[in-house]
Amino acid sequence: MSGVLAEVTGNLGSIGYGLAAIGPGIGIGIIYGQGVQAIARQPEAYGLIRQNMILGFVFAEALALIGIALAFAFRA
Amino acid sequence: MSGVLAEVTGNLGSIGYGLAAIGPGIGIGIIYGQGVQAIARQPEAYGLIRQNMILGFVFAEALALIGIALAFAFRA
Amino acid sequence: MSGVLAEVTGNLGSIGYGLAAIGPGIGIGIIYGQGVQAIARQPEAYGLIRQNMILGFVFAEALALIGIALAFAFRA
Amino acid sequence: MSGVLAEVTGNLGSIGYGLAAIGPGIGIGIIYGQGVQAIARQPEAYGLIRQNMILGFVFAEALALIGIALAFAFRA
Amino acid sequence: MSGVLAEVTGNLGSIGYGLAAIGPGIGIGIIYGQGVQAIARQPEAYGLIRQNMILGFVFAEALALIGIALAFAFRA
Repeated sequence: MSGVLAEVTGNLGSIGYGLAAIGPGIGIGIIYGQGVQAIARQPEAYGLIRQNMILGFVFAEALALIGIALAFAFRA
Repeated sequence: MSGVLAEVTGNLGSIGYGLAAIGPGIGIGIIYGQGVQAIARQPEAYGLIRQNMILGFVFAEALALIGIALAFAFRA
Repeated sequence: MSGVLAEVTGNLGSIGYGLAAIGPGIGIGIIYGQGVQAIARQPEAYGLIRQNMILGFVFAEALALIGIALAFAFRA
Repeated sequence: MSGVLAEVTGNLGSIGYGLAAIGPGIGIGIIYGQGVQAIARQPEAYGLIRQNMILGFVFAEALALIGIALAFAFRA
Repeated sequence: MSGVLAEVTGNLGSIGYGLAAIGPGIGIGIIYGQGVQAIARQPEAYGLIRQNMILGFVFAEALALIGIALAFAFRA
């Protein structure tokens, strides 16, 4: 048996992060997309709206950052 | 047999977490996106709206945190 | 046999749970996102709306919790 | 057993980046799609709307760029 | 055992690019779909709307082009 079977290299961590980034990527898009529509509807509530957009962004982004941490935790 | 078969390393736990983070990531985005639109529509109901946004966020985030716990539980 | 075969470890249970958590994560987001819009539209129906939001959340969350149970049931 | 079993080559990093690009790709589309509708609804709030569109775009794009970095970090 | 077990050939880079093209494909569709509706709603804001549609298209398309570059970078 002399042939090369498969030259696939890499670590599953990058796939794990990639999957973990799908949700927050879509989620942040929804937050900011709906957010600018809310601003357009009621510009005088800009303070409250922006504050909650940032809050939602942080909560969603955290899921992807945890994915980076897990990728390194399971690197071995 | 001299060929390199595959140099893929890693743990399936990171893939499991990545999958578990897709749903909450999109879900949190929907909650906060629709939430800021609800605030723009009726700013005087801000207390009730924010309270339920936080509640929904906690319920969705819990699904991803369980994914972290399972990743470590099945690490062996 | 000298080549590295693959250093992938882990249990498919975590992937199963991850897949099972995608749907409820998105679903809870839709329930709470549309729910706060319903509250903004008719705050006086808050009792009925909240009661049904909780009900829908429980039904969706149950799907992910069954995923945890199955992951441990098929661990062997 | 003399045949070549599989001639699959490559690194899992490109798959990881591909997955990480799904979310931001959809997210940026939602931001700009909803954004131009917000502009059409209230052109006089163009400054605020554009500012938040750029902010959301940067937050979403960062998730994909992290995917590139991880692909090279796990290349070995 | 003399038969060929699996005659799968190819490089993972094409899968990586394929995944990277999912998000921008949907995203650009959302931008132009929502964009023409915004133009229909307020044709006099055509300049601003078109300018932001092109901007969002470029940002989303870049994610797929990076996928092509990575496919060649990880070809070896």
